[in-house]
Amino acid sequence: MDVRAALAVEAGKPLEITTVQLDGPQAGEVLVEIMATGICHTDEFTLSGADPEGIFPAILGHEGAGIVREVGPGVTSVKPGDHVIPLYTPECRECEYCLNPKTNLCQAIRVTQGQGLMPNGTSRFSANGEKIFHYMGTSTFANFTVLPEIALAKINPDAPFDKVCYIGCGVTTGIGAVINTAKAEPGCRAVVFGLGGIGLNVIQGLRLIGAEMIVGVDLNNDKKEWGEKFGMTHFVNPSEVEGDLVPHLVDLTKGGADYSFECIGNVKVMRDALECCHKGWGESIIIGVAGAGQEIATRPFQLVTGRSWRGTAFGGARGRTDVPKIVDWYMEGKIEIDPMITHTLSLDEINKGFDLMHAGESIRSVVVY
Amino acid sequence: MDVRAALAVEAGKPLEITTVQLDGPQAGEVLVEIMATGICHTDEFTLSGADPEGIFPAILGHEGAGIVREVGPGVTSVKPGDHVIPLYTPECRECEYCLNPKTNLCQAIRVTQGQGLMPNGTSRFSANGEKIFHYMGTSTFANFTVLPEIALAKINPDAPFDKVCYIGCGVTTGIGAVINTAKAEPGCRAVVFGLGGIGLNVIQGLRLIGAEMIVGVDLNNDKKEWGEKFGMTHFVNPSEVEGDLVPHLVDLTKGGADYSFECIGNVKVMRDALECCHKGWGESIIIGVAGAGQEIATRPFQLVTGRSWRGTAFGGARGRTDVPKIVDWYMEGKIEIDPMITHTLSLDEINKGFDLMHAGESIRSVVVY
Repeated sequence: MDVRAALAVEAGKPLEITTVQLDGPQAGEVLVEIMATGICHTDEFTLSGADPEGIFPAILGHEGAGIVREVGPGVTSVKPGDHVIPLYTPECRECEYCLNPKTNLCQAIRVTQGQGLMPNGTSRFSANGEKIFHYMGTSTFANFTVLPEIALAKINPDAPFDKVCYIGCGVTTGIGAVINTAKAEPGCRAVVFGLGGIGLNVIQGLRLIGAEMIVGVDLNNDKKEWGEKFGMTHFVNPSEVEGDLVPHLVDLTKGGADYSFECIGNVKVMRDALECCHKGWGESIIIGVAGAGQEIATRPFQLVTGRSWRGTAFGGARGRTDVPKIVDWYMEGKIEIDPMITHTLSLDEINKGFDLMHAGESIRSVVVY
Repeated sequence: MDVRAALAVEAGKPLEITTVQLDGPQAGEVLVEIMATGICHTDEFTLSGADPEGIFPAILGHEGAGIVREVGPGVTSVKPGDHVIPLYTPECRECEYCLNPKTNLCQAIRVTQGQGLMPNGTSRFSANGEKIFHYMGTSTFANFTVLPEIALAKINPDAPFDKVCYIGCGVTTGIGAVINTAKAEPGCRAVVFGLGGIGLNVIQGLRLIGAEMIVGVDLNNDKKEWGEKFGMTHFVNPSEVEGDLVPHLVDLTKGGADYSFECIGNVKVMRDALECCHKGWGESIIIGVAGAGQEIATRPFQLVTGRSWRGTAFGGARGRTDVPKIVDWYMEGKIEIDPMITHTLSLDEINKGFDLMHAGESIRSVVVY
């Protein structure tokens, strides 16, 4: 079938709005009509060429929501008409990882997903007979896409696509880092570095679990108001701090953060995030994705005196289990999404979404098909 | 009173066996007759001059066992005749740290302890009227020493001093890292780097909790037999591995270690220890003390894909609570100590103990007064 897509032709070039061909779902696969998709920094990371594993031409996009239109042989967990969110971290419930309660990193289809292919090693997308690669197993920058059944979370059909698509990545990553990875407790003090689309969701995750102090750190003073909207209690602009940032944060948090979250991808900030943690028990969680080959460093004394350094992907969430719950939380008003969707675009305007991200003018842009 | 001591006169010089003066216990303090003391790498670290916080002249030693001879005003938890192990990590049971179940790093007397002084800011040791500093709050290289009450674990009086003194540091550090810090589970696979006095205790800690695979890593093939004595199931000499060590260990552990322990103090080994951990859930625990200013490094991807980097001091043990239990485990045969005490010396021979350590000929030398 013909589908409308924003095609990433090569690294560093704008997406091309075009028509491509999509083959129907094979065994274990599902055809989904994508109704809306967010534009995330990870798409930008790959499109820019900075991602060493980027493959082109490809259909990017990994933060979507849509409706099941057709299922391939053997599919049992979803049926046509179901509303779903595609999962770039699937949940097969059978692999060694899914069966270990300590991780969400299902490995069932990791190899082919990394190659831009479906689990059987082929692509469903093409243009004029030339293969086009999938991306993160999701490829939501097309109005129809094919996904493995294990990469679909079935959600409340009343949920608005143009809002809950954000749960496909940013919301879950931020809230999940607090709930699943840090397992932060009520009354804790936390520091969040970077108040973008992830950091704000970390902040609302901390508000949700009853944190006592939520410190936001950002170089852009415009983010103060944004952070406060979602529960931030203190704002620090490092460029306005006299002296070093780490002791300033340690003082502010009365001895150091119980939890800190790096939501930028800057290895120097990752060090500050660790070192502003409380001696004895402070945990720092890396969420941001650093550039290829970059390294984090610290003195081991920081760890020997009780801080721990950890990371999280997709907020430690098991998508098929946790994403529907987060959609319900949104529908019940426990978390907010609407104010973070600052721009709604048509597919034709998708490159404008990247421009808004570069300019720092958007929290999240969403394309509605 | 006059006491016999091995005095650290200055960095880099052998200890001087001499007589020094010891004042009696003040409020909250206890006079302990030290019956035996181990010689640990940390004493060597300070004596060598590598410890940036080393202060001289001082009475070193922090791995002792002895008998309470006199208590100062207000002391209620021990009385003359009690058998005790001095604690370089005290347990006041009242500070913010003692009241937080996530840490053992009691801060009640940290500042003065670091200054080589008793909590009231003075020293009890002197020679010819000149002040001699305490060390780690314990100073067990003297046949009598004065300690704060909160730095004494009361133990089973049947326990032999020349063996259980080792519980004052090495045994508790190694076993505690497994039990308290890693909280390792039965069936886990673990890698232990460095099979010295700490590493062997990590190994017996892993045996105690029912680990499935215990891999020991050491450049000295003589350590293979030592490791096996305490439960090691596999030995790896990095100099005999073809190719890189990390992928070799990942293969050997069928995907990576659930837990790894660095017991050397080498920042490059700390990186290997982290990176040989299993994706998704592997935890690396730093026990070794690195040189001043040295840094650990890795790519943040290692953490984002589910490994965590942590550290431990005194095995995460709360001394007054946990040390008596470990003494009981020794008395009940649950853990072994005797084979690790390779050399027993008199105080006059204490410098020989350091020589044996340098030569790699001892696991532990113990001085018996």
